[in-house]
Amino acid sequence: MYQSFEVTARPEQGPPRLAALRAAMAEAGVDGFIVPRADAHQGEYVSPRDDRLAWLTGFTGSAGFCIVLPEIAGVFIDGRYRTQVKHQVDLAHFTPVPWPETQPGDWILDHAPDSARIAIDPWLHTVAQFEQIEKKLGDKVTLVRTDNLVDRVWEDQPGPANAPAKAHPMEFAGEDHAHKRARLAAALEAEGHAAAVITLPDSICWLLNIRGADIPRNPIVQAFALLNADATVDLFVAPGKCAGLADHLGANVRQHPPEALLGALADHEGPVRIDRGSCPVIVADTLGDRGVEGEEPCLLPKACKNAAEIAGSAAAHLRDGAAVVELLAWLDAQPAGTLCETDVVRALEAERRKDNALQDISFETISGTGPNGAIMHYRVTEATDSLLEDGHLLVLDSGGQYLDGTTDITRTIAVGTPPHEACAAFTRVLAGMIGMSRLRWPKGLSGRDIEAIGRAPLWYAHQDFDHGLGHGVGAYLSVHEGPQRLSRVSTQPLEVGMILSNEPGYYREGAFGIRIENLVVAQKAQAPQGGDAHREMLCWQTLTFAPIDRRLILPELLDHPTRAWLDAYHAETLEKIGPRVSDGARAWLAKACAPV
Amino acid sequence: MYQSFEVTARPEQGPPRLAALRAAMAEAGVDGFIVPRADAHQGEYVSPRDDRLAWLTGFTGSAGFCIVLPEIAGVFIDGRYRTQVKHQVDLAHFTPVPWPETQPGDWILDHAPDSARIAIDPWLHTVAQFEQIEKKLGDKVTLVRTDNLVDRVWEDQPGPANAPAKAHPMEFAGEDHAHKRARLAAALEAEGHAAAVITLPDSICWLLNIRGADIPRNPIVQAFALLNADATVDLFVAPGKCAGLADHLGANVRQHPPEALLGALADHEGPVRIDRGSCPVIVADTLGDRGVEGEEPCLLPKACKNAAEIAGSAAAHLRDGAAVVELLAWLDAQPAGTLCETDVVRALEAERRKDNALQDISFETISGTGPNGAIMHYRVTEATDSLLEDGHLLVLDSGGQYLDGTTDITRTIAVGTPPHEACAAFTRVLAGMIGMSRLRWPKGLSGRDIEAIGRAPLWYAHQDFDHGLGHGVGAYLSVHEGPQRLSRVSTQPLEVGMILSNEPGYYREGAFGIRIENLVVAQKAQAPQGGDAHREMLCWQTLTFAPIDRRLILPELLDHPTRAWLDAYHAETLEKIGPRVSDGARAWLAKACAPV
Repeated sequence: MYQSFEVTARPEQGPPRLAALRAAMAEAGVDGFIVPRADAHQGEYVSPRDDRLAWLTGFTGSAGFCIVLPEIAGVFIDGRYRTQVKHQVDLAHFTPVPWPETQPGDWILDHAPDSARIAIDPWLHTVAQFEQIEKKLGDKVTLVRTDNLVDRVWEDQPGPANAPAKAHPMEFAGEDHAHKRARLAAALEAEGHAAAVITLPDSICWLLNIRGADIPRNPIVQAFALLNADATVDLFVAPGKCAGLADHLGANVRQHPPEALLGALADHEGPVRIDRGSCPVIVADTLGDRGVEGEEPCLLPKACKNAAEIAGSAAAHLRDGAAVVELLAWLDAQPAGTLCETDVVRALEAERRKDNALQDISFETISGTGPNGAIMHYRVTEATDSLLEDGHLLVLDSGGQYLDGTTDITRTIAVGTPPHEACAAFTRVLAGMIGMSRLRWPKGLSGRDIEAIGRAPLWYAHQDFDHGLGHGVGAYLSVHEGPQRLSRVSTQPLEVGMILSNEPGYYREGAFGIRIENLVVAQKAQAPQGGDAHREMLCWQTLTFAPIDRRLILPELLDHPTRAWLDAYHAETLEKIGPRVSDGARAWLAKACAPV
Repeated sequence: MYQSFEVTARPEQGPPRLAALRAAMAEAGVDGFIVPRADAHQGEYVSPRDDRLAWLTGFTGSAGFCIVLPEIAGVFIDGRYRTQVKHQVDLAHFTPVPWPETQPGDWILDHAPDSARIAIDPWLHTVAQFEQIEKKLGDKVTLVRTDNLVDRVWEDQPGPANAPAKAHPMEFAGEDHAHKRARLAAALEAEGHAAAVITLPDSICWLLNIRGADIPRNPIVQAFALLNADATVDLFVAPGKCAGLADHLGANVRQHPPEALLGALADHEGPVRIDRGSCPVIVADTLGDRGVEGEEPCLLPKACKNAAEIAGSAAAHLRDGAAVVELLAWLDAQPAGTLCETDVVRALEAERRKDNALQDISFETISGTGPNGAIMHYRVTEATDSLLEDGHLLVLDSGGQYLDGTTDITRTIAVGTPPHEACAAFTRVLAGMIGMSRLRWPKGLSGRDIEAIGRAPLWYAHQDFDHGLGHGVGAYLSVHEGPQRLSRVSTQPLEVGMILSNEPGYYREGAFGIRIENLVVAQKAQAPQGGDAHREMLCWQTLTFAPIDRRLILPELLDHPTRAWLDAYHAETLEKIGPRVSDGARAWLAKACAPV
């Protein structure tokens, strides 16, 4: 079992650790220390060694940070975690701060002593984050770099992740790493850059066609790299991690220990490209004037999947869809009031594991019934585990990591007979999901330009949801991948081959939650008869196949093209998944896929 | 008759004028001169004196510019004017350049001699425009300021506009100018700015509650102003223009001749706010370090109409709607093949003039039948005037200036029996117009975030149109007003009181055009039963009432809420406009407003 339901937050552990950290601050001669959630690689998941925020505060969310001052410790959390933080931290010692509404710089100015010196670990903050805070502070408060003060006081801190890396086969990667290095190096050379620093592990894995196991749920290798304009790579990685990969990497990928990175940068003639959004402060410090800002060179190429990656993802989704259908068929046979949320998580993981192809789950399954479904990033634990009762909606958001692709699917399932208003909201969410699935749009538009299509059915009813419509997804990499997003904050043009989630939702606090999520890949659209043949437009190809719960649909709220899309989707689901499931599940699926 | 159908472009006049300008360039010791369409106030319309681009090139479009070099003269025009420019300029002497695809700086680098000196009139270019070109040119080509070289060679150039200004009554303005000055001055003071330069005439008119007649179709007063942090205004305006307004303006609005502006700026201690987007280069030059960049202080307050302005606009629209309905009823009675485009323009203006309230038309009526309808900014002339024939669609886009409001309405009308594909496209355009009209959206979103709603029905059919969905509209001011727009280029959040057009279209070159346009005003939305009461959302109130041609609608392509909106809109149109029209028109209107 990959997932655990353990309650990991121990609010009572926070205060003594906080006291120890404050002692270390005093010893270091600083008035504050910022503890981010992030590690040096800015990933969404961190290794146990880097889980400093949770260790100090008890808060286990995937984003946030703590600013410790002598008299107050603010835990900055976004809208998803307002409730969770109150249960996980000792509120007598930690103060939740709504973020980004309150900016760290402003908060420091309000709470720090005059002329305070606030310390940061320059490995854990990006250039952009650092400058944003520094700009706010002006000359009233000084940010200083130190070693990590949490590490000084964390006595049993685990060691760094050190899982062996593996070569990622060409069959799934679709392009060998020499070719990738050559085309990215050409782009560097065209800009006059001698090299680029890469600190995102999924970028390094994509570039070199390697995968690892340093971080749960993410098949990545923690490392740093320098991509050089001559198409060679200097890879800074713990010795032994890539020991078996000498042949795969070849002579043009030189391995060095991670500690050698700063020295290599100090000696480099430059110019070396760094990305403000991911580059640690210490890297920029070391490069000084030889660092030039630009986009991380793998970001966009990694996002635009090639034919092998798309075919792999499609194959992974059929395999994953079969597991989901088996689960749904089983779940439907259980009477209301007999199962708990964790039973569903266990059963679903068991279905996915039946196929030897599963490498890991792609994130902790969200299984939230009734009011728990309204908690957008709910993680079920022994303490919160709830019974699926008559009238509930169950939000089930899960995914798998397969060698050929990463999946992420959400279905909302009726338990017994949910109320009419839940069905009405479900139908609107579905209309938004289908409206986006059916969309064509002019090439060049970004997620921001089209996201409204997935929300409009809710908007017309004066309803909405407080998360983006969709995120990028990697190819056997991170389940949350940038820069592509279906979100009002994304102005990255959508391009052919980008895989994104399409996941509108609706959440009524204390009552129910709804989310429907398919993965889709952007494709060139062919103009139909009567269309504008001269217009370059894109459309989506759906990757995820599993039925949408027809018991929650009010067909009279759907227009004809939306119903037609749904019926065709269900017919395709039956055709593609039917042959892959047990006889019982197939019979259930045939009913679940009947026209509405 | 406000509108004329005269062919004003005389391509044969261009070459001798171009030769004279090149002689002036040589005399001034420069290798080029840039002739923009704009005057010093950056309005869409210019006075005859400022119509230098048309005088030089023959091109009469509302946007563009000409860069004259010794061997080539490029006329930069956007997508709307690609065809028109070819008929208006002598192509042996002027070269059309697609813009913004080709940027002026790049074009100059490609065509100018090495180390060229290119001159501009620093009154006619904004700081933003100038810097954008200068940045491209680097140190290869130098931009230099001169007096206007066109004015040197234009012997019979008209004098400056000098129409008398009038006070705009409180009944329509809704806020007296002392109050406006005070609240804007408070905002200046809060930013530490001693004054702000205002060069947009509609801003000055809004701020001081005055209107004028310096420019056709725009009831504005050409002037410059300094809004001071003590809530006084220095108004730089031709003597006599505001002679009758001493009482209205009062002691806190000091008048000076326009020539005094630069001296006043030279003597000013600053800091003086300037807006890069509208401030002439010469103003920024004069201020030097004492100039600080910021938003033009009237821009947003002017865009957010108060209750009196909204009520005035609604009243103006009922009056204007009655004229449009009389025209439509009359038009419907004329057999196909009997009317020309100009007949419709004349008849429509005559209907608007029957009411003494009409001050001017708000722009040249676009009356384009059949293939002419596909020319988005078609201006009918004696040379192009075409017969309304069976099977045509007529695009009729027009508006009026009234003391209480500015209108802008487009209807597309069937002549005889148009083809099915035109009706299908019309129905999609209508679905987009209604989809936007019905929309609610979360407060804080911009035109960019919601524009897709008005395009999606076309997108689904692989169709689209090449203009924005909507533009801001003034309150008895400019029919095109910023900063509010429904467009992918607008990130200005939409706010309560903003008036915009909602005008999707579809254009098939050589065949037909379609556009349907209503004006709408943004309002706070009240959450209905079942809605999220805690969410702040905005919605539209429709201002325009005139029937949509039911003969062009394929009802089976419209979903239920869209049809319901249309039927309710038609019922409201009949109720509001019916009592204002002749018996014959009322009978026609009742049929035109029947449910679909």
